[in-house]
Formats: sequence, C-alpha cells, structure tokens
Amino acid sequence: MTFSMVAKHAKWPAKADAIFAIAGKAEEAIKKYGKENVTNSTLGALMDDNGKLIAFDSVFGVLKDTPNEELSAYAPIAGMPEYLTAVEETFFAGYKPQAHIRVVATPGGTGALKVAMWNYTEEGDEILTSDWFWSPYQTISEEAGRKITTFQLFSEEGNFNVADFKEKFKAILNKQDRLMAIINTPAQNPTGYSVSDEEWDEILDFVKEEAKNPDKKIILLVDTAYIDFAGVADERRAFFTKFSNLPENIFVMAAFSTSKGYTMYGLRLGALIGMSSNVEIADEFRVSSLHSGRANWSNGNRGAMVVVSEIFKSKELTEAYTKEKNQYKAMLRKRADAFVEASNEVGLELLPYRDGFFVSLPCDKPYEISEALVEKNIFMVPLGKGIRFAVCAVSEDKCRKAPKIIKEVMDRF
Amino acid sequence: MTFSMVAKHAKWPAKADAIFAIAGKAEEAIKKYGKENVTNSTLGALMDDNGKLIAFDSVFGVLKDTPNEELSAYAPIAGMPEYLTAVEETFFAGYKPQAHIRVVATPGGTGALKVAMWNYTEEGDEILTSDWFWSPYQTISEEAGRKITTFQLFSEEGNFNVADFKEKFKAILNKQDRLMAIINTPAQNPTGYSVSDEEWDEILDFVKEEAKNPDKKIILLVDTAYIDFAGVADERRAFFTKFSNLPENIFVMAAFSTSKGYTMYGLRLGALIGMSSNVEIADEFRVSSLHSGRANWSNGNRGAMVVVSEIFKSKELTEAYTKEKNQYKAMLRKRADAFVEASNEVGLELLPYRDGFFVSLPCDKPYEISEALVEKNIFMVPLGKGIRFAVCAVSEDKCRKAPKIIKEVMDRF
Repeated sequence: MTFSMVAKHAKWPAKADAIFAIAGKAEEAIKKYGKENVTNSTLGALMDDNGKLIAFDSVFGVLKDTPNEELSAYAPIAGMPEYLTAVEETFFAGYKPQAHIRVVATPGGTGALKVAMWNYTEEGDEILTSDWFWSPYQTISEEAGRKITTFQLFSEEGNFNVADFKEKFKAILNKQDRLMAIINTPAQNPTGYSVSDEEWDEILDFVKEEAKNPDKKIILLVDTAYIDFAGVADERRAFFTKFSNLPENIFVMAAFSTSKGYTMYGLRLGALIGMSSNVEIADEFRVSSLHSGRANWSNGNRGAMVVVSEIFKSKELTEAYTKEKNQYKAMLRKRADAFVEASNEVGLELLPYRDGFFVSLPCDKPYEISEALVEKNIFMVPLGKGIRFAVCAVSEDKCRKAPKIIKEVMDRF
Repeated sequence: MTFSMVAKHAKWPAKADAIFAIAGKAEEAIKKYGKENVTNSTLGALMDDNGKLIAFDSVFGVLKDTPNEELSAYAPIAGMPEYLTAVEETFFAGYKPQAHIRVVATPGGTGALKVAMWNYTEEGDEILTSDWFWSPYQTISEEAGRKITTFQLFSEEGNFNVADFKEKFKAILNKQDRLMAIINTPAQNPTGYSVSDEEWDEILDFVKEEAKNPDKKIILLVDTAYIDFAGVADERRAFFTKFSNLPENIFVMAAFSTSKGYTMYGLRLGALIGMSSNVEIADEFRVSSLHSGRANWSNGNRGAMVVVSEIFKSKELTEAYTKEKNQYKAMLRKRADAFVEASNEVGLELLPYRDGFFVSLPCDKPYEISEALVEKNIFMVPLGKGIRFAVCAVSEDKCRKAPKIIKEVMDRF
C-alpha cells in the first residue's frame, strides 16, 4: 500500500463521473454538429427547447428584489421560521397527515437524505431501496459505513414489486432491529415511476404488521425531489395522509428540495420533514437534526429561504410562480408523452414511466449502448441496469424522433 | 429510558443556544429603551453604528447582476474551477507555500471543518485545540464520535502557550498514531488572538520533530474564518509560506470562508484547502473531499462562487471590493482600539487581542456576570471561561464607554 494521510474509512478510489463524462461529449458534439443535430439527454435539469436552463423569473425576481442585508445574514440553524411554515404548507398541500410534524432546513435534498441516514441508522446497517436508484444513496451510505441493499422496483406486470419489497425488508429485519427503507416517489429518478396510492396501502399495511414487534424500529424515508413535476394538480401528494396515526415505532421522513420545484438547483436549499404520532419522537427528530445541521454546515441559504417564504406569503407571487411552474410542467408532460408514444410505435422497451424528468430503458450493456448512441449524436447516461433519457432536457420534437434511432442501435446488441 | 427512534449516537439533549438567548434579550431591551441606550455585543457579524448588518455593495451588486441561469445551475461537486482559482490566489496572496495545493468548495467554513475532521481523524480520536475555542468544534467532533482535548491558549505572559501545546500534543501522540490539531488564527474567535510568525516557527519546529517518527500522521487544520479582518495589509498571511516542503506525514489544511470577508454569511460558501509536499497526498485529499461533498451536500452555492470569481477576474470589481472591505476593516480596528484603550484605563482585564471581531474577558462566573450586565443594558455572550465582547457589532463610541461599566459589574463578583 502506498503512503496515505487520510483515515482508512475516508480513502476512496478516484472515479470519473459517468454523467459528467457523457455530458462533456455532448457539449463537444454540439460545437461540431450544431445543437439542432444533437440530442443531449444527459442533464438532470429542466431545459428549454434550445437547451438553455430554465430559471423561473417568478423565483429569481423575488431573490433579486430582496435587500442585500436579508441575503447576507445568517439564517437560524433550523431555518427561518417563515420558510419552515411555507415548506410544511406547500409540501403537504391538502394532504397533511395526522401526525406531529417537524421541519428542518438542509442544503438541498442531499443534505436532508444525509441527516436522515446518519441519524436513523447505525454503522454497518443495511438500508433498503429499489434496484433502480439515484446513485448518491450509495455514496451517502458508504461515506458513513452503511450499506445499500436493493429490492426489485418492478414486478413482471410493471407495478411496484411489493412482494420483493416485503421479502428483502423481512430479511434485513431478521438481522437488524432497525430498518430504513428509502422510497423515491413520485417521479422517481431514474425511472419516472410513481408509487400508486393502492401500492402505498400495501406497503404501509405490511410495515404496520412488522411494527407489531415492539423491538423493531422502522424508518421510511421518502425522497420527493421531483414531486413538483408529478401528476396534474396535487393528487400525487395524496399518499401523505396515509402517514396518519402510525405506530410510534414507524418514523416517516420526507426529503424536500427546492432544486427542481423552484429551479433553485445551485442555491442549495431543501428540508428534512419528520412525522410521528408521538410528540416526543418528533421533538427528538428536531433536536438530532439541529445537532447534525450545526455539525455539518451550520445553517442554510437565507436568500433562498426568503424566496420560498415571500412567494408563500403573497397571493400575487404565488399565482405568478404557479403559472410559470405549470407552464413548464405541461411542457415536460408533452415531451414525455412524445417519447413514450414514439417508443411504443417502434417497440422500444421502457420502464413504466409515470412522471418527472427521466425515462429509463432496461438493457444488458448500458455502457456499450450509450457509446454506440454517441455516434448517432444521441447522448444518454449509462446506469447499472440500463440507460436514462432525460426528457427534462430535450425538446418535444427530439423526444419524438429519438426512440426510433435508439431502438435501431439497441437491436445491434 | 423513554422510547426513542433515533440511533443512539444521534441522541442529543435539547439545549437552548446561549448566544441566541442573550441576543433575544438584547432585542427586547432595544425595543424598550431605544438602541442608543443598549450595547448589543452578542452578534458575530459586522454591523454599522446603527446596528444594521453590513452587506458589501461591491459583493451583492455582482450577485444581482448575475444572470438567473448562472444562479440557478448546479455547480460541480468540487466547485466552479474559476472559484477554486480565485480562492487559491486571494487566500495565499503573496504567501503561497511550496506545496501541492488542492481546493474544494464547501458550505461555509463549517463545511470545511467538518470534511477535514471527518476524513482525517478516526472515531474515538482526540482532536487538539486551545481552551478558548469556537464551540461548534465540539459539536462537529461529538457528532462523529471524536473528542476535543484542549491546551492552554495563553502563557502567563499572554503569548501563545507553546509549552502547553507541546505537552498536550505529545500526550495524545503517545496514545494515537494520528493527531489533528486545530489552530484558529489569525483573529481567533473568541479571543481575537493571532499566532505570531515566531510562534508559528516554534510550533512547526516541534511538529517536524515529532514527525520524524514515520508511524505518526500529523494533521494541522488552520481555521482562517476571520483572516480578512486581520492585520493591515496581507502580513497576517505570511505564515502560509512556512507550510513549504513539510514532511509528507504532516498534512496541512485551511478552512476558508466567504462569510466575513465577503459578508456572504447567509450564502454558505467556503472551501477546504489542502497542502502537501507529496502530490499523491494532495490528490488523495481531493478525492476524499469530493466523496464527502457528494455524500453531505452534493455541491455549493453557485451564485456565491460566481461572485468571488467575477470579483477576482475584474480589476475594477477587485478595487471596489477591496476599498469597501478596507473601509470597514479600519472601522473595526478603531472600535477594537477604543475598547482595549478604555479597558486599560479602568484596569479591565482582557485576553490579548490582536485582530478580528471579538475580544474576550476572562472570569470565573461568566453566566452570572453576563446576567448582571443585562441590567446595565450591556449584552455579552457567556463562554466557558469568560465573556465575549463583539466589537464587530458595537459602535466606536459604545466600545469606549462599555469597559468602565463592565469593570464595575465584574468587581461585584
């Protein structure tokens, strides 16, 4: 072993980022062939039809109207009280569960996931999530000496695989008294799947049954990063009411992010929301989260909190923001519809897409296929079990044209 | 024990924040008696003579001129390359050491301290710092199962207590093969002390001697949060050159913050800077820091990075920023001089102040004295071994008047 100064737990291999690499190739191709001839579906942010990042005027207008002193000052560690209220009200919309709810500001959804995973699992624990998952779950867990164990996200019929979820859940609970399951819904990254209300009933019935053993502590962590682009109105939030009056040994957290819903990706603001039927468990959550906040980043981006609060407090600003968001939500839906329809027409197999920024295509040789698509000027991110098409970043026209070419390339493998 | 859902390592007592509590009382007093009759020296941010937070026009002007898309986009995990360059050049100024240097963006100085402490110490390790220290060091270390051990910051003559530093350092190194020492300089919080260049020589001579044992790994973490308000020109950065050509088993990191130097407290941007004579150790630092970044907060505030980069790249913006900063640096110096002079006149004992936002007064009953001062409408933060006066937040006039009253109150105890 070569000489090293870092502690053993913090020694990691230098890894090239797959998304960054393929995105770089797409940029080169755009320079060479012109953007009209390149389909860059690598990026995880909403872009207009010309490939320009969409930053909501209704959001950044408020930011730029905020007095300098309001941007400059420290926020409290927990977050500005108005921000926490705005998050709680807009997040649950009409679907607030009967539960003691606490909200703590974090840097983006990642910060929320980190605090939840650090505080509610032990070193060495297995954390359960689906086999299609956002790869930073792995990074967050391995950084802290936790392990990711997966269940199959889809049944053969293309629904949430409740049977495999149960099997893997029980297997871990036989070894551990504490189990965290991460469910990324609605509009999962990378598949675009949204767990249905009926599937949530099955999940929760099962979990409540397991929780009858009072020695077991069950933690559900719902990653809602893409919720603002799911469904039509707020119906994709209806499952929140199912978290009402759960046994006290089931603790539910949601990771909230302003990255997509407010296009404030680069401002780094999110929140961790905890829900319990037991007020002491809710308070304990808040105390632990504040300790973690102080110990990791002190406090959050105050200007971004002001933006969310001001929009929430003003009818006029809320209307402008909602109108702008809905316009782009409709644009995204049209793109996804075009991609799915065109895929069906040519017989291109997709994972069941419901909502959101991404569609995934299962395949055995993701890296080879991604490489081969580069020659066709279609840029897709290779994943462990398939390739990802970012409808958020590609015009409707290109979304309609891409499936035929992808199908032809995939048929060669 | 009552029922709990959080993991054992994450269970913390609910603690009221001492600074927040006393700051709240100061706010009440201002409402009741008028701000001209209240000395609120609790806050750790630069305020004008009317108690208004100073937010540099030269900084927030750039932020507000930045296109929305530039604020909205994600920054790379490491930070924008221009930002990293700007940090490296402005931080070291003319005093860059002969070393391989790597810079990684973090959320504020806290994020930098967190990554350094997590990656370069083991669970259970003792971390050495001075007995007067910024209390979040304790929070960061206990969150991750590390312990703070202290040496006496001051000798009887009021200099850096090199003898006690050595003694405590050796004692830990007898138990651990890895030792991290945190030195908060220049302009230490809470004392305002700055380690002199001669003291740095003594420290480094000693550390190099200890590093002759190749089994020992020595980590120096320099917290430079207040460096922009230290000294007159850049002379308080001269000690950086002493980190040249150190043995490879001494690794030096600096925690950089834009909070004070750019008045971007609430924007949460800093950096961790690593320096090594061995290029592989520098690269290893970068890889570990990136893993930690991805696993804790993903990436940093892009708009704040743009601000630092734009100011660095433009002669005009640099001049405006430097002029504005120097104006307030001079204001701070006048306030501190007034406080120190008036203290000397009435025989009020201060810890040796050199630079920065705070002056500390040693005493045996900090909480009682802080309470008693409330009745005189002077608000000071109680610490473990004394009380802290924030010259950054109090007008020169009040800085001149306060010592006499403080002395009278302290004499009663």
